[in-house]
Amino acid sequence: MGGSGAAGRFPVDELRRFAVDALTRCGVPEPDGNTAADNLLQASLRGVDTHGVPSLLPVYVKRLRMGLVNPRARPEVVREGPSTVLIDGDNGLGAVVGRWAMETCIRKAGETGAAWAAVRHSNHFGICSYFTMLATERGMVGLAFTNGPPNMAPWGSATPYMSTNPLSVALPTQDQPVVLDMATSAVSRFAIIQAAERDEQIPPGWALDRRGRPTTDPQAAREGFAMPLGGHKGSGLAMVIDALCGILSGGAFGPRVGSLRRSFDTPQRASHLFGAIDMAQFVPPEEFRARITQMCDEIRGSERAEGVDRIYVPGEIEALTAARRTREGVPITPSQEAALLELATTLGVEPPRSTDEETGPVDSPTGGS
Amino acid sequence: MGGSGAAGRFPVDELRRFAVDALTRCGVPEPDGNTAADNLLQASLRGVDTHGVPSLLPVYVKRLRMGLVNPRARPEVVREGPSTVLIDGDNGLGAVVGRWAMETCIRKAGETGAAWAAVRHSNHFGICSYFTMLATERGMVGLAFTNGPPNMAPWGSATPYMSTNPLSVALPTQDQPVVLDMATSAVSRFAIIQAAERDEQIPPGWALDRRGRPTTDPQAAREGFAMPLGGHKGSGLAMVIDALCGILSGGAFGPRVGSLRRSFDTPQRASHLFGAIDMAQFVPPEEFRARITQMCDEIRGSERAEGVDRIYVPGEIEALTAARRTREGVPITPSQEAALLELATTLGVEPPRSTDEETGPVDSPTGGS
Repeated sequence: MGGSGAAGRFPVDELRRFAVDALTRCGVPEPDGNTAADNLLQASLRGVDTHGVPSLLPVYVKRLRMGLVNPRARPEVVREGPSTVLIDGDNGLGAVVGRWAMETCIRKAGETGAAWAAVRHSNHFGICSYFTMLATERGMVGLAFTNGPPNMAPWGSATPYMSTNPLSVALPTQDQPVVLDMATSAVSRFAIIQAAERDEQIPPGWALDRRGRPTTDPQAAREGFAMPLGGHKGSGLAMVIDALCGILSGGAFGPRVGSLRRSFDTPQRASHLFGAIDMAQFVPPEEFRARITQMCDEIRGSERAEGVDRIYVPGEIEALTAARRTREGVPITPSQEAALLELATTLGVEPPRSTDEETGPVDSPTGGS
Repeated sequence: MGGSGAAGRFPVDELRRFAVDALTRCGVPEPDGNTAADNLLQASLRGVDTHGVPSLLPVYVKRLRMGLVNPRARPEVVREGPSTVLIDGDNGLGAVVGRWAMETCIRKAGETGAAWAAVRHSNHFGICSYFTMLATERGMVGLAFTNGPPNMAPWGSATPYMSTNPLSVALPTQDQPVVLDMATSAVSRFAIIQAAERDEQIPPGWALDRRGRPTTDPQAAREGFAMPLGGHKGSGLAMVIDALCGILSGGAFGPRVGSLRRSFDTPQRASHLFGAIDMAQFVPPEEFRARITQMCDEIRGSERAEGVDRIYVPGEIEALTAARRTREGVPITPSQEAALLELATTLGVEPPRSTDEETGPVDSPTGGS
């Protein structure tokens, strides 16, 4: 997850070039390398640094080199109806499998107005919003969900059973899309680890200790697990997302999904679900875009809570971060940079070069949620 | 919302008979009266007493009598594609409009594997799970969302803009369905009002004061508003639900949706979204049911958190409550009973009669979430 300290900046093109080089060196065909690199880069640009290039590329490469991910996977349609498609991911990179599934889903939604694509035998797919924003680029509403390895206990339990299964919904506007992308835990594990490293008390509602009791002690939280968002509600959301991914697809669910970073014995067997809705089948698209834009403007322009400088709609902070980082480069901590250099040496590819000019105070990599 | 004190019990059949009598007396055709009564009764049975017969029937009748709800509404299809349908609710009772929309959605999902029904010009539709359980009864996955009057501020704002827009997802199992039904606020307004009446401090994360600041003071919370579930996440969920209901349908969104209980000038203009997925298009239905049942069994059987007696899956507590109340009758507080008697007098219909035998200690009406 990267250490702290002064950060360097890396131009977007350099990071992309490096990610593609690293992935193709592992046997990933260049088009698929581009897809996976774009997915990681989008996270790096949007400030979701837990899912960015330096955080995920090394472990993706490790799993490819260990034969746990199929570099030349060809996802295939197992079953198809007018508005449904079941896809086997052939154990490929989640970004590559997911993109293909979402493209298929969008194409089918263009025919019938709406479609769902359920995917099994896949791997970690990066940020959810990468896929939902493929839908908004085509003028559709996008939905994406994934399951993952067990790191969250169902409400009332003291045993991790499911992941902090995230969801994303993206809606086209007249400008930047509204992009909701959230885990079903209260906060990310990263935030808890950061608090533990600083030995700062954490707020109520963030975490449970090992015995499943709510805690504000950062060390107890680190040894325990993330609390589901709002307790039973986030637990229920995570459970139905697991079912809609792992069970609807006939793939793995619950504790049978493997860990990205802690289990190097078997493939992950992650499952995903993608949805697309062609809003043109309901209302004129320009009216839809205009009214979502009106909603955003009304919310942004509403009376601010005390102490709040600006009101953001979902995805807006990320879009602003992406614009800044596209100009100024992606901030990367020294420990992340060291990991990328080591990766370059291991693979025999040219390491990414940081930008020459430093441009003012550098923002720090942040955690996802 | 009912007061407190000793409660009487009413047999299910008596409450249904009374609700149907009251609604038909307002000009609602009997089949539609049955639908609306079933919706209210399901809430009363499942323990979601904020949405039960005594809580909602009086205000439904009031709005019908004031001409704010069309008793003889005939929802109609405005536009239809293979997997989409846009419905105008003709300002009917939300339960009636919603049921018709969900039935349409289920029928279409049977043809293409999945469908969405967007609804505008409707009214308060009762509990979300009423609609999603129509889908599980037909062996499908059900999804339901609604918007409502502004009572929650977007994150960072001090102005209510949207409702605590709820969502429901229901999944068929080999036994009772898994039924997630949740508002996008941390807790219901009802829970906050109850704390204020008892003058009990509320937990952090429940409420904001009038200026949008988090508060644990019950009176400040009562004057303020419910906090979105987990802060920015619940706020984002509520916003996208509002958009997927009010904007996808071309209906009202944000503060233009009228209050059920506080605005008697105009129709509510509520919007809903229903979805159905035929899992048989993905995997054999018996396999889907068996694996969801396995998931439920694994979660229920997992190590319990300290102090927890039993682990429940979503909808399980409600199903147990429904079984008990079907046998023992629905508990109703004296103030609720008085309201029902007044309603009976006003309408000239026979009041509901409580059960003769009291059967042990009576459970109290509870708040929804």
